[in-house]
Amino acid sequence: MSSQRATAFVPGHVTAFFSAHPADDPAVAGSRGAGVTLTDGVTVRVSAPAGETGAATGDGADGETGAATGDGADGDGGADGDAASDGPGSRTIDGEPGSIGAVDDVLAELGARGADVAVETDLPIGAGFGVSGAAALGAALAANDAFDRGRSENELVRIAHAAEVGRGTGLGDVVAQARGGVPVRLEPGAPGVGELDGVPATARVEYVTFGELSTEAVLGGDTDALTAAGEDALDRLRADPRLPTLMDAARRFAREADLLVPEAAEAIVAVDADGGSPESSGSPDDLGAAMAMLGRTVFALGTGLSDAGYDPDVCRIDAAGARLVDERSRE
Amino acid sequence: MSSQRATAFVPGHVTAFFSAHPADDPAVAGSRGAGVTLTDGVTVRVSAPAGETGAATGDGADGETGAATGDGADGDGGADGDAASDGPGSRTIDGEPGSIGAVDDVLAELGARGADVAVETDLPIGAGFGVSGAAALGAALAANDAFDRGRSENELVRIAHAAEVGRGTGLGDVVAQARGGVPVRLEPGAPGVGELDGVPATARVEYVTFGELSTEAVLGGDTDALTAAGEDALDRLRADPRLPTLMDAARRFAREADLLVPEAAEAIVAVDADGGSPESSGSPDDLGAAMAMLGRTVFALGTGLSDAGYDPDVCRIDAAGARLVDERSRE
Repeated sequence: MSSQRATAFVPGHVTAFFSAHPADDPAVAGSRGAGVTLTDGVTVRVSAPAGETGAATGDGADGETGAATGDGADGDGGADGDAASDGPGSRTIDGEPGSIGAVDDVLAELGARGADVAVETDLPIGAGFGVSGAAALGAALAANDAFDRGRSENELVRIAHAAEVGRGTGLGDVVAQARGGVPVRLEPGAPGVGELDGVPATARVEYVTFGELSTEAVLGGDTDALTAAGEDALDRLRADPRLPTLMDAARRFAREADLLVPEAAEAIVAVDADGGSPESSGSPDDLGAAMAMLGRTVFALGTGLSDAGYDPDVCRIDAAGARLVDERSRE
Repeated sequence: MSSQRATAFVPGHVTAFFSAHPADDPAVAGSRGAGVTLTDGVTVRVSAPAGETGAATGDGADGETGAATGDGADGDGGADGDAASDGPGSRTIDGEPGSIGAVDDVLAELGARGADVAVETDLPIGAGFGVSGAAALGAALAANDAFDRGRSENELVRIAHAAEVGRGTGLGDVVAQARGGVPVRLEPGAPGVGELDGVPATARVEYVTFGELSTEAVLGGDTDALTAAGEDALDRLRADPRLPTLMDAARRFAREADLLVPEAAEAIVAVDADGGSPESSGSPDDLGAAMAMLGRTVFALGTGLSDAGYDPDVCRIDAAGARLVDERSRE
């Protein structure tokens, strides 16, 4: 499997509610909570320079594709040349030069800094869709394949989770995005440490974004009230793992944790007034709206936002979670 | 979410190698091993009789759709009427009357025996594709949704796993099918007990079936040699979680466990002679063939079987695992 190029898709993830659980070990740190993964997501394409594939470490290497580079393959001069054999490769986001810290850390961990990495997404960045976590996980999956690093899925999720936590850009997106569906984070942390369940459901998802909100600023502040509200919401969802309960718990969490921004509050009320919430007389398929944690974003399950006169993006709950995409498929 | 009808799709699963780990508690019993989930699978449609939806048990019920039935909703007379309100509903397999033991047990556990259940699959039954496990898991997901039972994904996987183990028709298919991809069963058992990892990979899958092989007969016999060979294969794959190692370990397992049937041996050699195995000079995308455990079935990753002159069915590795399918999707 000496593919020199590989592509991964990772769903977006909107967190409905969460509690923060920091720890010194980034594989142990994380969050409890729940959210929704989206068929709108992040595609990461990785190309390995010639001669750079093969197992970077380890005892199971088959030697087929050449020996490997230790942990970075290059001097750390910080030069940003394009795919020079011993310097970092090119980095683009939606076609423009740009890099994401967690992606760089993942590539370093996999001895793949020389890769050319292209991140593409239709999702807004910094608006609560877990784009940085998705890019980190996609880079892990694609670099492992392109460089033939021979890591398991759990190892790759752990590497991406640790990079995201280390950069302070997220606590629970990566493990949720790896699972897909409607992930419930029962215990924080990477695979082998954390524990997941899911709400078995499929639904149409609508979302509207009003701007950015800094994850780092919120997670860096006092998170006690937030965590108490998040634990309460999780208890409610565990007792009744259904979508209406998820959305109701999300709305209550945003109020109790004092995270609701005015534009989001207005949209949630508008959807509710239009009949979207389960307490009202709307269609049973409309489950109201809630704010994405952490972003100036409102998401609705069903058609609540469009019914209320917004012009939302529309996707669905993603059943699969993060995955390699075979762009050479011969089927 | 008072849907009265629901549909689930569950991928087929061919086991490459395994070790058997029986236990009195069916949630603890299971197998270690690895295999490949397939985009060819089983679709299960469940319809709830009018008035039978709502939480069967529990404290989180919202009462929206009516109170619920205890654990079976009916006398146990065994009558096979069509959707009589207090008797079992209809059961079909590919349009013909027929039922699967594990499916019946799942429905009983969810208080959904009155459901009409239609199982459809392109896969051959009894040939090593995990059809019974897929049907059980699909019935769990669809019945939970159609009857609004409010169980979590882990709970539904546990119910289907226990039903499959209880019937003796499989040990590891259900947890693998729930995950999708190329599941590696590190520890046996249902969610919360067992532990999974995965080989991060996508590939074309070809398969040819030569007939049935009784899972019950093999699992009911002496499994010591099988388990030793299976543990050895798992150690090899954990040290190098890549597809070539999976296929090589599978071929060795079939020989060491003395499970290789003549037609399968012949096909594996034919694929190898044609260049399919990684030891030969074939395309790097062709990873040779192996026998599905337990069935008179050979599967190949790549084009090995068609290159060798067989007329295989063709599908791909399924990235998603078991999922609800929204046949009413409005997108």
